[in-house]
Amino acid sequence: MAGSPHLQPNPETNIRDARVADLPRIVELLAQLSISAPREQPDEPLPDAYAAAFADISADPRQRLLVVEAAGEIVASAALIIVPNLSHQGRPYALIENIVVDEARRGGGAGEALVRYAIAEARAASCYKLSLTSNKRRPDAHRFYEHLGFNATHEGFRVEL
Amino acid sequence: MAGSPHLQPNPETNIRDARVADLPRIVELLAQLSISAPREQPDEPLPDAYAAAFADISADPRQRLLVVEAAGEIVASAALIIVPNLSHQGRPYALIENIVVDEARRGGGAGEALVRYAIAEARAASCYKLSLTSNKRRPDAHRFYEHLGFNATHEGFRVEL
Repeated sequence: MAGSPHLQPNPETNIRDARVADLPRIVELLAQLSISAPREQPDEPLPDAYAAAFADISADPRQRLLVVEAAGEIVASAALIIVPNLSHQGRPYALIENIVVDEARRGGGAGEALVRYAIAEARAASCYKLSLTSNKRRPDAHRFYEHLGFNATHEGFRVEL
Repeated sequence: MAGSPHLQPNPETNIRDARVADLPRIVELLAQLSISAPREQPDEPLPDAYAAAFADISADPRQRLLVVEAAGEIVASAALIIVPNLSHQGRPYALIENIVVDEARRGGGAGEALVRYAIAEARAASCYKLSLTSNKRRPDAHRFYEHLGFNATHEGFRVEL
């Protein structure tokens, strides 16, 4: 996906597309999202499935895997997806998935910069909404999203497969 | 997206990919999803934006626009999206969006057939979940999804753009 000029609210914060060399650090962050049973395998060497998924994401013109760097370290990540859509008179929508800010760096502005960047990208792509779901066991995250202008208008249903 | 063999729980019900000729009827159904202000323009001739969106969806290898026919009439529709993904050890996930069953045909099994078809497709694509969001003002829909095995584990947040 072509990006619009990066928003850099903090001169020490850099938002960019992930590179394959970032994978170990991103998987380390994703492992922080497991609420109950661990669902990632962050020990190196990483299982090949991560590199395969990264290649699939890179080949997908609708998706960007974003990272936030602060002082040269990746401190946050998220996937931004733009979906072509028939409803709303044919306007696409955007999703943000796998939002994670390093536990040791929360409250430092990296997450806010990342979500504001996603909102700006979604708007630039003429999306009618930017959606995300957040586990009901994460009230702190809910306050964070509400602070950024999100409303919990919907129930997030899923079937685990 | 290549489809697996169709599940046809009812011999009179046929699930298939939408064709451009189906657009007026699909938009008529989507118009039933507006809770407050009407958000579609279903009067013919349809605004060109619908055909443009249909072309974008058709060109997207990750998305299928599905319709359910019963006795030759389209009675339900949904979009099924498979998203390449890094988390969960690189397993993709699936989304179902714009699920609509004609108000006059609810309870007839078309919606259930459509959602069960989406679940089977998501499983065949090795997805770790099939997700959807449903407005909190639709308790009947929530019971329908719970009946089909969905759990409302998440809050559905959105920013309208």
